Amino acid sequence: MGRVICAGLGPGDPDLMSLRAARTIGDARHVAYFRKEGRAGQARRIVEGMLNPQAIEYPMEYPVTTEIPFDSPDYTQALARFYDAWADRLASLAATEDVVVLCEGDPFFYGSFMHLHSRLQGRVPVEVIPGITGMTGCWNATDTPITWGDDVLTVLMGTLPEDDLVSHMQNADALVIMKTGRNLPRVRRALERAGRLSSAWLVERGTMPGQRVVRLAEVEPHDVPYFAIVLVHGHGRRPEIAE
Amino acid sequence: MGRVICAGLGPGDPDLMSLRAARTIGDARHVAYFRKEGRAGQARRIVEGMLNPQAIEYPMEYPVTTEIPFDSPDYTQALARFYDAWADRLASLAATEDVVVLCEGDPFFYGSFMHLHSRLQGRVPVEVIPGITGMTGCWNATDTPITWGDDVLTVLMGTLPEDDLVSHMQNADALVIMKTGRNLPRVRRALERAGRLSSAWLVERGTMPGQRVVRLAEVEPHDVPYFAIVLVHGHGRRPEIAE
Repeated sequence: MGRVICAGLGPGDPDLMSLRAARTIGDARHVAYFRKEGRAGQARRIVEGMLNPQAIEYPMEYPVTTEIPFDSPDYTQALARFYDAWADRLASLAATEDVVVLCEGDPFFYGSFMHLHSRLQGRVPVEVIPGITGMTGCWNATDTPITWGDDVLTVLMGTLPEDDLVSHMQNADALVIMKTGRNLPRVRRALERAGRLSSAWLVERGTMPGQRVVRLAEVEPHDVPYFAIVLVHGHGRRPEIAE
Repeated sequence: MGRVICAGLGPGDPDLMSLRAARTIGDARHVAYFRKEGRAGQARRIVEGMLNPQAIEYPMEYPVTTEIPFDSPDYTQALARFYDAWADRLASLAATEDVVVLCEGDPFFYGSFMHLHSRLQGRVPVEVIPGITGMTGCWNATDTPITWGDDVLTVLMGTLPEDDLVSHMQNADALVIMKTGRNLPRVRRALERAGRLSSAWLVERGTMPGQRVVRLAEVEPHDVPYFAIVLVHGHGRRPEIAE
């Protein structure tokens, strides 16, 4: 009997993949990965040149969203059917051989693989290989520690309501804000209201070709970066004397 | 001229090191690492069997603390002198050859290397190789996603005052609590006050031999785990509809 193995690919630079992930990917006979229809896909791009020439590839293409609004119940149902169908297909392949699923960053940190992971439980053995998260790649790109001492770090999604963003931004020492894209104007307003815009950095394509590290306050309003994360570094909260 | 290269070792399992870190460590002629006096040191243990037999090792032993309280100004000064001296020594080695500094997890995430990094700026080229953080290894050990959807994740140190811990624990979806050890009783009280103790896990020696994953509520009061992190998983906050 085979397994479904999800390999965390790390932040983008293939050289930052773990030894175990690289070996598993090079040995794989069946390789699956998510992508948008008609796109090469970021996960597949990271492993370019690493796959066994005999490997069979399974691009798992997200349902097209041009007809249905992204946040409608119909789209949620279409997505659920898509994950159901791929869980069945991977389980059936794994009945006889290992299947490797590629996943950017770390699979258990905001990863799409979890939708397959939950559907595969009890059907086939599932293994996950951790990866360096995208945010770790991005704070390394700034060449500055994100946290030290007793700093509190909070990770936020740019999709959150502006007031929630402001309150979290005021209460943490260090910040990571993901899912920026079209949410960037709201993220920027929230940082300004929280008094933290001047220390915010935008990292685009961290560890990848075309990497850009720039102060968020200097990003033009019409500029919508790709694969971008916003960071605010901690300054080393002093340890309190424990009672 | 050489460089000081800090290699992130990842969470503990040597197979989870990045390709770049493993290659850099295997090629190194000068290898430095922090440890407590008289101990092998966790960083050195992770690379056992990977070093070039010709490599020269530089154990950087923290000043002994039995005479001076850990949180006194005298200890802070002793630590500063220790980092000053090692920064000088590494800069002098790097004048002619590369020196590799080993660092558990990711060097820019609560890593001790930052004290050398800041002291080396402008003196020699410094490079940092990212690593999988210890917390990533620990949440992978629970075989459950730490975050999905729009979950807010907050990382806390167990050294923080109890009231601060409670307030952060109430406001985030997913939690990571580091520096547990002797702070574990306070962390546990704070989780109970925040209503989150029943969903908290303790992961000891994540990804290493002797790994233990247990519900925090079931940990005996006299049990003080080593290399332990407390986790509370998110449950997938639903994305709000952006305005």
